[in-house]
Amino acid sequence: MTETHSPDAALEQYLDAHRDVRIASFEAFLRIPSVGALPEHAGDVRRAAEAIADDLRTIGIEHVEVSETAGHPIVYGDWLHAPDAPTVIVYGHYDVQPVDPLDLWESPPFEPVIRDGRMLARGAADDKGQIQMHLRAVEALLATRSRLPVNLRFVFEGEEESSSPNLEPWLRANRERLSADVAVISDTSFFDGNIPAITLALRGMMYAQIDVTGAPVDLHSGTHGGAVENPANALAGIITGLKGPDGSILIPGFYDDVVPLSDADRAAFAELPFDEDAYSEAIGAPGLVGEPGYSVLERRGARPTLDVNGIWGGFQGDGAKTIIPAHAHAKVSCRLVVDQDPDHIFELLREHVERIAPAGVRTTVRLLGAGRPSLTPMDHPATKAAARAIERAFGRPPLYFREGGSIPVCASFESILGLPVVLAGFANPDDNAHAPNESLVLDNFERGIRAITYLWDELAAGVEPRP
Amino acid sequence: MTETHSPDAALEQYLDAHRDVRIASFEAFLRIPSVGALPEHAGDVRRAAEAIADDLRTIGIEHVEVSETAGHPIVYGDWLHAPDAPTVIVYGHYDVQPVDPLDLWESPPFEPVIRDGRMLARGAADDKGQIQMHLRAVEALLATRSRLPVNLRFVFEGEEESSSPNLEPWLRANRERLSADVAVISDTSFFDGNIPAITLALRGMMYAQIDVTGAPVDLHSGTHGGAVENPANALAGIITGLKGPDGSILIPGFYDDVVPLSDADRAAFAELPFDEDAYSEAIGAPGLVGEPGYSVLERRGARPTLDVNGIWGGFQGDGAKTIIPAHAHAKVSCRLVVDQDPDHIFELLREHVERIAPAGVRTTVRLLGAGRPSLTPMDHPATKAAARAIERAFGRPPLYFREGGSIPVCASFESILGLPVVLAGFANPDDNAHAPNESLVLDNFERGIRAITYLWDELAAGVEPRP
Repeated sequence: MTETHSPDAALEQYLDAHRDVRIASFEAFLRIPSVGALPEHAGDVRRAAEAIADDLRTIGIEHVEVSETAGHPIVYGDWLHAPDAPTVIVYGHYDVQPVDPLDLWESPPFEPVIRDGRMLARGAADDKGQIQMHLRAVEALLATRSRLPVNLRFVFEGEEESSSPNLEPWLRANRERLSADVAVISDTSFFDGNIPAITLALRGMMYAQIDVTGAPVDLHSGTHGGAVENPANALAGIITGLKGPDGSILIPGFYDDVVPLSDADRAAFAELPFDEDAYSEAIGAPGLVGEPGYSVLERRGARPTLDVNGIWGGFQGDGAKTIIPAHAHAKVSCRLVVDQDPDHIFELLREHVERIAPAGVRTTVRLLGAGRPSLTPMDHPATKAAARAIERAFGRPPLYFREGGSIPVCASFESILGLPVVLAGFANPDDNAHAPNESLVLDNFERGIRAITYLWDELAAGVEPRP
Repeated sequence: MTETHSPDAALEQYLDAHRDVRIASFEAFLRIPSVGALPEHAGDVRRAAEAIADDLRTIGIEHVEVSETAGHPIVYGDWLHAPDAPTVIVYGHYDVQPVDPLDLWESPPFEPVIRDGRMLARGAADDKGQIQMHLRAVEALLATRSRLPVNLRFVFEGEEESSSPNLEPWLRANRERLSADVAVISDTSFFDGNIPAITLALRGMMYAQIDVTGAPVDLHSGTHGGAVENPANALAGIITGLKGPDGSILIPGFYDDVVPLSDADRAAFAELPFDEDAYSEAIGAPGLVGEPGYSVLERRGARPTLDVNGIWGGFQGDGAKTIIPAHAHAKVSCRLVVDQDPDHIFELLREHVERIAPAGVRTTVRLLGAGRPSLTPMDHPATKAAARAIERAFGRPPLYFREGGSIPVCASFESILGLPVVLAGFANPDDNAHAPNESLVLDNFERGIRAITYLWDELAAGVEPRP
């Protein structure tokens, strides 16, 4: 226990006293239908950005601006009056997913209601609720202490659900003024059962397309069958040459840069309460299979994969059409783990496909997307600070897990600004993000606000600012 | 040389004298737009059937009827007054392919014109021209001899371009009255360069669909990648397990019933003038590949194949979608050669797929179509009779080749009526059948009519009627 664990009575009192105001503010924010991907909501998206900016100014954040990009704006604001303390960039996003199918919602998605201890509305969990938690935490700290324990820079974007096309350019353009020591991203969830958890890692991605071409037109499979290579058969052979029957990836060099799991890493995985049968039943797959020697959670979170995301060529209708397809195609992607580099992995894939592609067809491979994996270890001072803050707010130490998916912005903060990233997210795992009836457990909201105030105290005590 | 080779002066004189009338009759028949597949042409299809029936009656054929089926009618007629001679079933079809794209035709498809020694119209080659050749040949024989050297039964259908759905039922229903010794089908072409040729064999077909299913919905490839089998990867593996990289088929037992090529068979293949480079260039494939130890023509005509005709699953759009597809599918077909049985081959395929399908997905295989291969050997008396007739009419002995495609009706005559089938077709190989500007070389038409008259004489001399 450090001194920062001693309760700040005024802060706790303030937070207790302002619950209703806070909920009202949260609901007002949720009423703005800021669906980033739909042009008809562009005005709403901007309204959400302006609302955050107003909020930031009101609670005492400085240099607040609605910074224009080629798409939706980025809201920036800072408070930099803790000269000997670390500087933290706080990231969130105020855009939300579309709401269709609307008829599956139990109440209108932009008319928030509280039911069974949850706030029910689009964006409640992903990610407006978590932005609100940060704003309300800082509001309480500034209201009761007139100062913050760390320096904060807020970066809230409006295009996360559209793959953040303008965040990287904005980070690059503002790199000088964004100096910091750590980034805190609150856009993740607790573990199954709503158990407090810190996401240590995200997988990266390499997404490619393989195109196999034969004759310029479909050929009659009777007249020409036996004389020529079939692009669809050839494509199947290429795909089969990428991954062995045991799930191991056959591309030479693919695993070279994979950082092996340490004993502590594997112990953390083993500690996660996870029921393979229940998981298998939940997703409805006929069984769980994958790389031998690793648990399901390890395979999903800490091992790279290769999956066909789509495949097509030739006749897809009912009945029979007797052709040799002129061409066949596959989308193939790899989830990557530290320290795999997506561009390097693409080169390895391309070389391997060229090596194994059969004669009689033309085969090309092109890169469609790349994102780096990220990992902030359990023993990083920022992770440890977050763990203490969460334990204090939620009454138990967090679990540590690795998310199989990717949050590209996470890699952007790492690679562009050189920051360790702490993924401190407070959504509940059954929050229905991206689905009808999105919700946030209000206890997570309330305790999360407290955890954030503790986190700034813990970071001030536990992380050295850069010289 | 047999006595039948002595010229029949009256017949030759009749044929020479009636050329203009014959061409006029041919053109009148081509003017009927009997597009079998298009409902708006149903009346025209019937008109074509009635025109044949009238023609048959006029020239002296008996028991002429327009026999109703569930679809377009079958025109039947016979002449059975040669008690010691064999009985021949003559098959042709009076329906034609649709004409689109119409703008690529040099003249309207149902307004026949003669240009560069060819009759240009839809159906000129496939197959109205060849029906006309049979009618005019018999007309000349009956006009000059008042008798025929063989017994003839004409069976002309109107659904060949729609896969002959009602021919087999009709053949089965009329099996008793269709007793015969041989079937002659005139719906094939000479060899490249318009060299007289007899098609000895057609390949059969087994057409199946493989369905691979994983979870009931697409899964997020980040969240779940590594934990489950991917149906598209699994399908690729199954397809790869069906055919080796050298083109040989890996299904156990697949080749067991294949009748090996004899030295004479291979000599006949070797005699065919065929330029692999020109063929490769014509179809535009990046190269010719296939089963080792066989020439391209042998691979196309006398060896079984396995081809993916279509494959699909997951995301096919532009860009990237990070899913593990819920299901993936492939149409897979085999061209078969004697004595492979399509139903047996399907069972072998199904068992093999079940054997090699990976865990973690559900895999099913279902049969979509089956057709038997057919072969009437070079040394069959009917083939030899046809060869002599063709040599006499065209001035050189025919080549023998095996067509890679299938004519299902051919197998129907073999399996239902138990007849050897002689594929004596007179279209030119560049006839644009099924394409704009279909044509028939008029010299093939004229000599073909003569060849048919000689064929009846040759069959009378060379084929023993069944007791």
